[in-house]
Amino acid sequence: MDIEIICTGDEVLTGKIVNANFSYITQKLEDYGLPVSRGATVGDDRGELMRAFLEAGSRAEFVIVNGGLGPTVDDLSQEMAAKAAGVELELREEWVERMRRHFARRGRTMTDNNKKQAMLPVGAEILDNPIGTACGFAVAIGKARFFFTPGVPREMYRMLEEQIIPRILERTGSQGVIVLKRFHSYGIGESHADAMLKGLEDLAPDGSLKLGFRAHYPQLETKLTVRAASEAEARAMLAPAEARVRERIGNFVLCEDEQTLEGVIQQMMVRQQATLTVVEDFTGGQIAARLTGQEGAEQFFDRGAVCLTRHQKQQLFGLDRALVEQGNGLPLAATLAEKARKVGGSTHGLAVLVSLEPASDTGTQNGTVFIALATSKGTVTREARLAGIRNWVRLGAIEMGLDSVRRHLQGLPLEERTDFEQTRSVAR
Amino acid sequence: MDIEIICTGDEVLTGKIVNANFSYITQKLEDYGLPVSRGATVGDDRGELMRAFLEAGSRAEFVIVNGGLGPTVDDLSQEMAAKAAGVELELREEWVERMRRHFARRGRTMTDNNKKQAMLPVGAEILDNPIGTACGFAVAIGKARFFFTPGVPREMYRMLEEQIIPRILERTGSQGVIVLKRFHSYGIGESHADAMLKGLEDLAPDGSLKLGFRAHYPQLETKLTVRAASEAEARAMLAPAEARVRERIGNFVLCEDEQTLEGVIQQMMVRQQATLTVVEDFTGGQIAARLTGQEGAEQFFDRGAVCLTRHQKQQLFGLDRALVEQGNGLPLAATLAEKARKVGGSTHGLAVLVSLEPASDTGTQNGTVFIALATSKGTVTREARLAGIRNWVRLGAIEMGLDSVRRHLQGLPLEERTDFEQTRSVAR
Repeated sequence: MDIEIICTGDEVLTGKIVNANFSYITQKLEDYGLPVSRGATVGDDRGELMRAFLEAGSRAEFVIVNGGLGPTVDDLSQEMAAKAAGVELELREEWVERMRRHFARRGRTMTDNNKKQAMLPVGAEILDNPIGTACGFAVAIGKARFFFTPGVPREMYRMLEEQIIPRILERTGSQGVIVLKRFHSYGIGESHADAMLKGLEDLAPDGSLKLGFRAHYPQLETKLTVRAASEAEARAMLAPAEARVRERIGNFVLCEDEQTLEGVIQQMMVRQQATLTVVEDFTGGQIAARLTGQEGAEQFFDRGAVCLTRHQKQQLFGLDRALVEQGNGLPLAATLAEKARKVGGSTHGLAVLVSLEPASDTGTQNGTVFIALATSKGTVTREARLAGIRNWVRLGAIEMGLDSVRRHLQGLPLEERTDFEQTRSVAR
Repeated sequence: MDIEIICTGDEVLTGKIVNANFSYITQKLEDYGLPVSRGATVGDDRGELMRAFLEAGSRAEFVIVNGGLGPTVDDLSQEMAAKAAGVELELREEWVERMRRHFARRGRTMTDNNKKQAMLPVGAEILDNPIGTACGFAVAIGKARFFFTPGVPREMYRMLEEQIIPRILERTGSQGVIVLKRFHSYGIGESHADAMLKGLEDLAPDGSLKLGFRAHYPQLETKLTVRAASEAEARAMLAPAEARVRERIGNFVLCEDEQTLEGVIQQMMVRQQATLTVVEDFTGGQIAARLTGQEGAEQFFDRGAVCLTRHQKQQLFGLDRALVEQGNGLPLAATLAEKARKVGGSTHGLAVLVSLEPASDTGTQNGTVFIALATSKGTVTREARLAGIRNWVRLGAIEMGLDSVRRHLQGLPLEERTDFEQTRSVAR
C-alpha cells in the first residue's frame, strides 16, 4: 500500500513555520502500521498544487493533504482538488449550517467569506471537523483516495484519528483494532533498550506485535503496537509484553502514555501530602520550571532557589563558609537539600549542583552532577559524570534531578548507572 | 528559476524527527531572494530516491538534497545520485585524506566503512565540509544541478551558506551580494508592524530592498534584505531602512541579528557592573532559566526565587502578612523586588507576579502580570493584562518581565502598550 502526504502553504514552503504536522501525521500512521512512502511540500500556487495532486494520484493509493481549507483567497485546496478530480465545486448546505451554529455558539455571526469553506468538489465525502470551521473531505484523484485536512494542528489531529485512519484501515481490509502502549524512560539509549528488549516481538508469534523507539534526548520513548480483533484482545496480547518491558527496563521508566515525569511527581507528592523545595545552580531554574508548569503545582511545590556562585550559595542559607569553599560535591548538595527542606517548610528538599569541566577543542564540555534529596528520614545522594556539549549536560542534569525525586518516591535506588555517564578514569 | 528540496531518511519520513532542516534551507534561500518551489521527503529506499531524483531533475533548475551521506548501509545518496546521473561511483582520494586528518586530530583512527563517504559519482564537484566527514557534492541530473548535503544540521548550515548559495547566485547571474538585517521585537504583532513600516521598501525604488516578518510568539522578527553590487553598497542602502525601523518600532526592539534578549541584558549588566536577583511565581523559574542559560551568567545573575503561594511569598523575606494577603498586585511586586535586591546583595531586584483568571469555556485563560524592578534610585513598575491560553500568558509574562529589565537599562519607559494586552473593560 502506498500512502503519500502533501503539505500545502507558503508559510510551510518558505520555512516561516517548521512543518511539525508532517511528522505528526506520518508518525501516527506508522503507529497504526500504515507506512508513508513519500511527502511533498508545495506553496499556495495553483500550478504546483495541480501537479502535486496529479502526480500523487498517479502513484499512491491514499493521499493526505494538509492545509489550504481556510476562508481566504490563498486557500486553494478545494478548488484544485475539484480541478484535479475533473469535477465542479458545489456549496454544501449541511456545512454552512454547521458553521452558522459554530459561530452562534461563540456569540458571533458568520461572515460571507466563510461560505468558501463549504464549497467542495461534487461528490466529495465530508470528513467531520467537530472543533473548527474548515471542512475536511475525501475525493478520488487518479487512482488514489485523497483526504483533505485543515492546517490547524488540533483540528487535523482529531480528523486524522477519528475520520481518516479508520477509513484507510477499512479500505485496506485491516481487521480489528490497533492499540499503542508507550513507555517514557531516562537513562537508557535506544540501541541498549533494543538489545534489552530483544525477542519481545516473539511474544506474539503471528507478527501482530511491533516494538519501536523514538529518542528525544534525554528521554527515550518505547512503543508497543498490537493489532487484534478487538480492544480486549489487543490488551490481553499487550499484557505480557508490557510486563516484559517493566521487568527489563522498569526502573528507568519515568511514566507511560500521555503522562509526563513532572506530572507523575506531582501526582505522587500530592497523594502522599508531600511538598518540595528545590535548590539548583547550573540548571538555572529549569528544574523549578518543569515542576511548576502544570495546573495545581502549588499543592506540592513550595519554593525554588537558583544560585550560581559560591558566595550566593553561602549567603542563601547562611552556610558554613568552609563547606562552600570546598566547591560543588555531595556534602554541599546534602547540606543545601536539608536547609532547603527546613527553610521551605517542606517534607522534601532537593539540591542539584553541576560542576562543568572546561570545554574541549571538539566542543564537548562534560560535567558532574551532584544530587541530594532530604526527607525527615535522612538524605540520599547521587553523583554522575555526564558527557556531551554544554546544553546536553544541562538537559541531563535537569532530567536526572527530577528522576531522582521519582525514584525516591517509588522506593527505587537513586544510583543506577545510565548510558549517558562517563566514569572518571575514562576522562582525558 | 525553480529550486526544489529533497529531504531523505527514514527518520524524517516516519516522523521520528521533525524536519527542521527543510525549513532552515528554504528560509535561508528566501533570505537570498531564492524562492523554493517544492519540497519532497523520501525514505532510505532506492526506488523512491531514484524516482524523486529523476522527477526533480526533469522539472527544476537546482535541487538541494539533504541527508544520506553517512557511512552506514542505509545512506544511499551517493549511490542513487550516480545511478540517476548515469555514471559510476569513484573513490575520491582527496576526501579520504581529509577524513584521515579529521580523525587523527581527534586521536582516532578512520575505520574502513568511512571510505564509503568518499565514493562520489564520476565528475562530481566536491562541496567542502570543514567540520564533518560527510562529503558534499554537486552533480547534474536531468536538466538540474543537484547539491547533496549532510543531514547533521550544523554541517548542512555551513555548506549551504558557504558552498551552495554562492554557486546558485553565480549560476543565476545574480550580481553582487545580498545582506540581511534582522530585528527581534516584543509587543507588536506582525500585521501591526507591517502597517507601521509601510512604504519602507520604497526607500530603494529599484525593488532591491525587501521587508519580511517571522512571528514566533512572543517575539517577532523583522527582516530587511538588500541586494547590491558590493557589501559596502548594500550597507549604505540598508542604513536609512534600519533607521526607519528603529524610529518606528525602536522601543520594542529587543535585540538584532544573532543576539538574544537575555544576551543583551547580560551584556548591559556586566558592562554597568550591575547584578540581579529575581523573584517569580507563575513563570516558575523560566525567567531565571532564560537569564542563566548563557556562559558567564554568574557575572550578573545573583539569585532566583520561585514561590507559588501567598504563604511562601510571605515566608521568603518575612513580609508583612497584611500586604501578602492583598494578593498579587504592584504593591507586593514592588516590595518583593526591593527585598530581593537587598537579600541578594544586588544592584537590581526584579519581581514578576501573575494572577490567572479562571479558564473560559473556549479554553482561554487571561492573566494579569505585575512587574517591579528595584534599584538604588527607586522602584519602577508595569502592569498588563495578557490574553490567551494558559501557556501564552506564561510566555508573555516571561518576555515582558525580561523586557522590562532591558527597557530600564536602556532608559526607556517600562509602560508601553503592546498588542498582546487587553484592557479590563474589553474583558470577555
